[in-house]
Formats: sequence, structure tokens, C-alpha cells
Amino acid sequence: MTPPLQGPRPVTPDPRRVLSIQSHVVSGYVGGKAAVFPMQLLGWDVDVVNTVNFSNHSGYGRFGGPRTDASDLATIFSYLEQNGLLQPSRVLTGYIPNAKSLEVIADVIRKLKTRHPEIIYLLDPVMGDAGKLYVSPDVVPLYRALLSCATVITPNYFEVEVLTGVALTSADNLREALDKLHTGFGVPHVVVSSIPLSAALRASVPFPPGTFSADDDLLLCVCSSRRGEGKEGASSDVYAFGIAQIPGYFSGVGDLFSALVLAHFDGDGSLGKATGLAVGTVHRILRDTAAHSAEGATESTDSELDAADVERRVRRMRRRELRVIQNAGVIASCTEAVEGVLWAGFWT
Amino acid sequence: MTPPLQGPRPVTPDPRRVLSIQSHVVSGYVGGKAAVFPMQLLGWDVDVVNTVNFSNHSGYGRFGGPRTDASDLATIFSYLEQNGLLQPSRVLTGYIPNAKSLEVIADVIRKLKTRHPEIIYLLDPVMGDAGKLYVSPDVVPLYRALLSCATVITPNYFEVEVLTGVALTSADNLREALDKLHTGFGVPHVVVSSIPLSAALRASVPFPPGTFSADDDLLLCVCSSRRGEGKEGASSDVYAFGIAQIPGYFSGVGDLFSALVLAHFDGDGSLGKATGLAVGTVHRILRDTAAHSAEGATESTDSELDAADVERRVRRMRRRELRVIQNAGVIASCTEAVEGVLWAGFWT
Repeated sequence: MTPPLQGPRPVTPDPRRVLSIQSHVVSGYVGGKAAVFPMQLLGWDVDVVNTVNFSNHSGYGRFGGPRTDASDLATIFSYLEQNGLLQPSRVLTGYIPNAKSLEVIADVIRKLKTRHPEIIYLLDPVMGDAGKLYVSPDVVPLYRALLSCATVITPNYFEVEVLTGVALTSADNLREALDKLHTGFGVPHVVVSSIPLSAALRASVPFPPGTFSADDDLLLCVCSSRRGEGKEGASSDVYAFGIAQIPGYFSGVGDLFSALVLAHFDGDGSLGKATGLAVGTVHRILRDTAAHSAEGATESTDSELDAADVERRVRRMRRRELRVIQNAGVIASCTEAVEGVLWAGFWT
Repeated sequence: MTPPLQGPRPVTPDPRRVLSIQSHVVSGYVGGKAAVFPMQLLGWDVDVVNTVNFSNHSGYGRFGGPRTDASDLATIFSYLEQNGLLQPSRVLTGYIPNAKSLEVIADVIRKLKTRHPEIIYLLDPVMGDAGKLYVSPDVVPLYRALLSCATVITPNYFEVEVLTGVALTSADNLREALDKLHTGFGVPHVVVSSIPLSAALRASVPFPPGTFSADDDLLLCVCSSRRGEGKEGASSDVYAFGIAQIPGYFSGVGDLFSALVLAHFDGDGSLGKATGLAVGTVHRILRDTAAHSAEGATESTDSELDAADVERRVRRMRRRELRVIQNAGVIASCTEAVEGVLWAGFWT
């Protein structure tokens, strides 16, 4: 394997450059295809490392294409380093298919952070969703070990559970999990992108009266910024966002969300604003995608019907590709920000 | 090798979808990195097939990363087809590193065009520049054979010479080459992206008096649309664009140019307008890149000095990466169109 990062040049980070490391699909909008264009639109030079080059996302059932193996990744980073091109001020990692690749990438990130501790690293620990792991299990301890390098992490509720061992069913659990992430793993900024809003959890969130009705089908997004040393009292500032559920499953939502959080994040104190912009923009794109996918089609997510007719699932997947390109104006305008609710008594 | 295109579904082309097949670099703006973002900005869903995944462009001298081999390309196309995702209304091909890959890609394009003859295919026969071939020589006959599928081609002067065997030193030569491309190879629309403007050639182009002074260092861009059957007289409509040379060599210019021609092309009669938009937009980005690369740096293109100091060339390459992201507004606004000169007496 080519040894990465042995070049002679400690370059100055480029203030508007993101190193993005995640999957690539030819068609559709997941991984880098969901993340790169929005960051570019928002003015970021994005260096794009493709961990796989697949035809389409795995939700279609049928997909294929080459994975970039660990030694190829090491070669790519080695040449970037030799040419003084490894100069991001921000790093974004998403789907990485196996432990060997993650080891190479983690090595690069540790060296970059050692060289320039001010680099903002958003780690999206893409491991699974809805109770199912979709990476190799040996990836999990590597992500745990890498958390100390991260500035921001954006797990979904299942990934929080995998990382911390705490099931997010109540405010107490959420507090325990966030404490583990901030204090145990040393992550300054945590965004839990989506948590199913159980009745117990819902009763705890201080949404102003009348914001949502009891019947609303909601997801909860929570962001939490650890307080700096020397600050007394609560161990983090927590904001909650209630998100109206949109029926059906859409792929790439987390990848788009993480890219927008990173693009809008502006250092300590800005996580609530960045999260609100990401939540609002993603929701607007989801609403548009859902409306568009429903035109002339009424096939719902139904695994029994899917099993009986493979093409049924494929048709639905095609219609549910995120309408990222059509919403370029929405992304660039930054007009869809959602206000979070400060969760004042969270830590008491 | 997975057989491509055996799926059961003759899908309807998506009117705003481009299938783009070319190189990918992690850092910098050549190949897909120069082409995809501009097309997305202009509202195109782009399906992105990466023929290579390199760290950076070859002009740095040091570069590496995996090539997508022919069987991987066939696998990707096969899954796209099976999932009904091979539905572009436009196709763009650029750098393809070897004959085996080009064979797979040519096979896909032929089948797409057979299925939907109205598909607009822009073939940029990326083979070399300034007298030097930078692909395997066995690629050349494959490109010649594929020309009959192309709607538009965007060779530089050297690639015209390689395809037709005619050196572009005079208006007579240019006429001979264009006739071969239109009549011999059956290409309806030809854009020769850049021709060094010899004194002989310059004297022939009907630039209005006073447009350029005799000392101006110019390149010539020529676009030529074959007249439909039944039209009498000249065999094509030819427009000429004089382009002020910008000192130094910039990589990715042709890739950006071809993407813009395709994004703006609107069928027969629109080539002059699309070419003018592409010429003007690219030139504006080049001027900005040149101005930016000159800040605090005076190292010119000099192969002797480069040979003595490898890092000198690398520094220059980094500074000369096209400022595509920073010029998103220029690309999207379409305000930089340049007017071509109708070359009235070209065929007589």
C-alpha cells in the first residue's frame, strides 16, 4: 500500500475547500451526488474522493460497480499530498464500505488534524438506519475511535444507538447518549438528524404550545454544542426541531443534510443556525420530491407487494430520487431556515 | 464481461438528463469536475460515469488512482439498464483512457441512438493537443467509427487533424476537413474549439474591420452546421469566433467548453448561439483564473525551468486550476455570449 501523507509540504488550509469522502452513484442522488453539488452551489471548492462507483443506490435491489479499495485510496491521498493538494479547511466523510478503507481515511484525517487542529471535520457515521446495519460490523469500533477527531457528527438515531449503546426512547436516554458523545468520545458538536418521536420523548420537548397537534406525525432532530471549558452549568446547548414526516422512504436525505450542515456551519455558536438551514432546505426538497413522485403514481412503500414484483420497487426508487438539481435556487437562497427550540432544561 | 443493454425496458428519454462519461479527478477542474457542475447549474440532471478516478490531472507530472476497466463499465451500464435508468436525452463523452473502455461505451451509445435517434450526442474526441497524442493510438479508429453517431463534435485543431488527416493551416484545409467530417463521417454539427490563427488563415476570416488589430494574439473557434437535405448551395453554415489568447496553459478548458456547448445546444440552427455562449463563458472564467493565478506569482510556462525544479510546475498547476466554482454566477447567468461572424463565402 502506498504510504499516505509523507510529502514534505505542510500547506496552509484553503478557507473555502472541503475534502469530501463518500460514495458515488452514476444515476440518482445519494452520497456525493447528493452532497457535492449543494456545497459547490454554496461556494465551496469540493475535492471529491469516491469510495465506490456504483450504478445507483442499493435501495433499487440491483446495483453494481467498483469499490475503491484501500490501496487505491492510499495512492490517491499520497499523490494529493505530494502535489500540495491536501489543503482542505473542512473534511466531510460519509459512506465508507469497509474497515480497511476506513482505516486509510482515518489515518489521513488524523494527520490533517494534527497538522491543522482548526480543520472542521464533519463525520457522518453512515452505518445503518431503522435498526439495520448496512456496513461491515468491524467499521463500528473504527468510527468510535475516530470520533475524537470530529468537530461535528450527524448520526441518525440508530447510529447513535450503535455508537453509544443507548436506545433513544426518552429524554433521559437522549441525555445519556449526548453525554457519552460529548464527554466520553469528545465530540464538540452533535446533530442527531432524526429520531422517531415517541410519546414519552414528545412530552419532554419544550415545543411552544400550538406548534404541532397531537396527531402530527413528527421526527425529532436535535443539535447539541458542548459548552466551552470554564463555562458553568449545563454541559451543552441543545436545540430541538420537529419535522413533519413525509410518507415513504427517500434515499440520500442524510447525505444532503450533512453536506448542508457543514456548508453552513460557522464555528462555535453556529450549530443551531446551520442545523435549522439544513433541516428547512432538506424538508423543502423532500416535499417537492414527494409531490413530484406522486404525480400519476400511487404505489406506496409496501415490502410484500415489492417482493411479488421487483419492478414495482424499482419504479418507486426512480420516482423518489431527490430533486436536488431542480431545487438549486432553494439551496443557494438559504431562505428555508427553520427555527429550533432551545431545550432549556435539558440537562437538569 | 457483463453484457450491457439487455434489459427489457425501452424507456422514454428524460428531456433534462445528460449521461456524461469522462474522467474524474479528486482535486481540480478537468474532465467531469469541469463539466458536471456547470451542466447541473444550468438545470441538467447529470448521470456521471467516471472513466478514471485520479488524484489530479496529469499536467502535475505526478498523479494516480484507479481506471474504471471495461468490464466495470459494462457492469455499471448493465445495472443502469436493468433499473430503467439509462434514459438520457443527451450524452456527453470526454476522456476515455483506452480502446477497450471506448468499445464498451460506443456499444452503449449505438444502442441508445438506435432506440432513440433523437438523442443529442456530443462527442468530444479527447485524444491530444498541440501535436501530442495522450491516449492509446488504437482509440483513434474507434472514434472515427463512432463519429456517425454524434450530433455535435468538439475537437481541437489537433484532433481534427488526427481524425481527418488534414492539417489546419489555411481556409482551404479547414474546408477540406469540415467537408470530410460532415460528408465523409456524417457529423451534422462540428465545433473546432481552437485553431492557432496563422497569417494565411487570418486573412481569410471575414472579421469586420477593426475587430482585432494585426498584433492581437488570437485563436480561432469555428462552428459549422451541415445544411439539411434539399437545401441548395453551401454545404454548411459556418461561424467564426476570434478569441484573445491568454498566456499560459490551462487544463480542463476543452472539457468545460464541451459541457457548455451541450448544455446550451438547442437543435438545428442553434449551434452558433451555443458556441458563442460557451466561448464567452469559458473566456471569462479563463481571464479570472489567469488574474487569480498571477497574484503574487510570476512563474511562467517554461519547460526548461520546470525540468530543473519539479515543484515549480506543480505550483503553477495548482494556481491554474479553473475557477469554476467562483464563477457559478457567470455560468448560470448566460450573460457572456460572444457573437460569431457568419463566414459567408466559406464554401465558395
